[in-house]
Amino acid sequence: MSQLRKDPIIGRWVIISTERGKRPHDFVVQKDPEVLPEKQCLFCQGQEADTPAEIYAARESNTLANASGWYVRVLPNIDPLMQSSGDIGRRGMGMFDLMNAIGAHELIVETPKHIANIADLDIAQINQVFKVYVQRTRELEKDPRIKYVLISKNYGIAAGASPIKHSRTQLIALPVNPKRVKEELAGARRYYEFRERCIFCDMIEHEIEKQVRIVDRMDGFIAFCPYASRFPFEVWVLPEDHSADFFNLKNTEGLAKIMKSVTRKLSVSLQDPPYNYIIHTAPFRRMTSPEYWKTIDYDYHWHIEIMPRLTKVAGFELGSGFYINPTPPEAAAEFLNQQQGEKQ
Amino acid sequence: MSQLRKDPIIGRWVIISTERGKRPHDFVVQKDPEVLPEKQCLFCQGQEADTPAEIYAARESNTLANASGWYVRVLPNIDPLMQSSGDIGRRGMGMFDLMNAIGAHELIVETPKHIANIADLDIAQINQVFKVYVQRTRELEKDPRIKYVLISKNYGIAAGASPIKHSRTQLIALPVNPKRVKEELAGARRYYEFRERCIFCDMIEHEIEKQVRIVDRMDGFIAFCPYASRFPFEVWVLPEDHSADFFNLKNTEGLAKIMKSVTRKLSVSLQDPPYNYIIHTAPFRRMTSPEYWKTIDYDYHWHIEIMPRLTKVAGFELGSGFYINPTPPEAAAEFLNQQQGEKQ
Repeated sequence: MSQLRKDPIIGRWVIISTERGKRPHDFVVQKDPEVLPEKQCLFCQGQEADTPAEIYAARESNTLANASGWYVRVLPNIDPLMQSSGDIGRRGMGMFDLMNAIGAHELIVETPKHIANIADLDIAQINQVFKVYVQRTRELEKDPRIKYVLISKNYGIAAGASPIKHSRTQLIALPVNPKRVKEELAGARRYYEFRERCIFCDMIEHEIEKQVRIVDRMDGFIAFCPYASRFPFEVWVLPEDHSADFFNLKNTEGLAKIMKSVTRKLSVSLQDPPYNYIIHTAPFRRMTSPEYWKTIDYDYHWHIEIMPRLTKVAGFELGSGFYINPTPPEAAAEFLNQQQGEKQ
Repeated sequence: MSQLRKDPIIGRWVIISTERGKRPHDFVVQKDPEVLPEKQCLFCQGQEADTPAEIYAARESNTLANASGWYVRVLPNIDPLMQSSGDIGRRGMGMFDLMNAIGAHELIVETPKHIANIADLDIAQINQVFKVYVQRTRELEKDPRIKYVLISKNYGIAAGASPIKHSRTQLIALPVNPKRVKEELAGARRYYEFRERCIFCDMIEHEIEKQVRIVDRMDGFIAFCPYASRFPFEVWVLPEDHSADFFNLKNTEGLAKIMKSVTRKLSVSLQDPPYNYIIHTAPFRRMTSPEYWKTIDYDYHWHIEIMPRLTKVAGFELGSGFYINPTPPEAAAEFLNQQQGEKQ
């Protein structure tokens, strides 16, 4: 019989179809067409003159901005969702509320080479990418109009990526806190008020004890398929030591190692599936005193959610807010562990 | 500049991209392949012996169950998400909660003919379909294990439909209230406590006054593109007179007329797009006294949400709970109104 499992953080129910029990080869992953030939890819080294001026780059010393010699390059999105200049202008319109889409929309180009999947970069390069995530978040935290920075990756057309096969990340800075983050904060706070413990820390302890959903554990990080996974082969990556804010991360190399291992396992098990990953971190807490800050720190634990996009969202999911997952997370973790993750 | 618009009911922000301003021909609708030839379609008249026994059928008098002569036929889903026999068995598992997937999963076959889109049925036939929706909901309301009946349609593969091009509806009965419905109830209740009016009734009044987002108005129903539309060309259909519960609907013919008109307009404007529609209705209120029932009736207003599936959900949307809509609803309504809806 199928199960309804409840996500303990936001209380969302997921239907886990234990009978259907889809295995990796039950999913047909369509190959995306390559649209642009490599020499025309604007994100490759050597094409710097044809892009907008870079916002930031991690680059070799003694190289010039907007020239070669970079490891990771941050560009303004040419068709930005959020604009960086202007006032927020929060206002009413009859019974409705609106504001201007003020914030930032940056593209983080993860490698000067024409490589599509972050899983295929080496650990040193992935480490550079995460260092840039931290740097950009710290920089945008200084803008008082911005309440949240959402870093996400779209890999493959089914995951919302464009057909240009050059690995990159979307950074979107927002003047409001995302609904999803507010739900997680509220859920984690309820749990903390009840138990005086971080719900994510308790989940980590539970997973280590049970040993049935763990995908990887190394260098202070853990990766597991969450109990109420929404998507087949969904994996969460968390620092084992409690930490609410991603931008305080020092051990970017540890994160690079585990992310390399997990994304490789997904790529090998599921034959290069489309996926998204999203960094979930606490909102900027500028309004609060350092004293308050300490006590509320336990309402969040930053983590990365990786979601292969193998299933379609239909009317039932849109209408209910539920998800249907045909692969139990215990089975998903077992399949992923049959693969050797890190191959360099 | 793009706008952030807030859905007044559940408080979700939507990014409306006013510059991108995508028009109908900017969306490329892929044609789905027809997989099964017509003679093998199990949902067609004449194939009754090869399907599971019908749960219910609207049929000509003096015809037998599981024989020809039906207008609308209700079948059990052969691979059900929710099973009808067994106990709910709500229980804990360490720090987690789960229950058995008990409820019902029915398939409503909307026509004995091999027609793919409800937009192509005549009004009398669509009326029969809505009568069956009401009948099945009333019937399932009698099962004390069931808290909610969610009726939804998937049209086209991108909307989660199977490749069999025979118009049908999914009915899923649940032992818990959907997250999305709870959010709507909470939002509408907050509004009612503040203003002592139904938020949906106020939206209808606002739309009639503004006249910029209305798609159709006939027979006691109104259709408009909501102010904070998540999807390009999203349309909501509501009864103009206040009513919380879909299963109390008497004027199924009026609903059939406006749904025919709206789905035709979408089909013609967007060249037969994939879409979902979902009936949003109040949960069954068995626990409450008739007196209480009267006062809480204003926390909901049943309606149908129609969502063409022209855009992809990427990491940003999954991580934030926001939506990005490249077509302002005012422009969408204008495009839809350039089409003659009802053509019979």
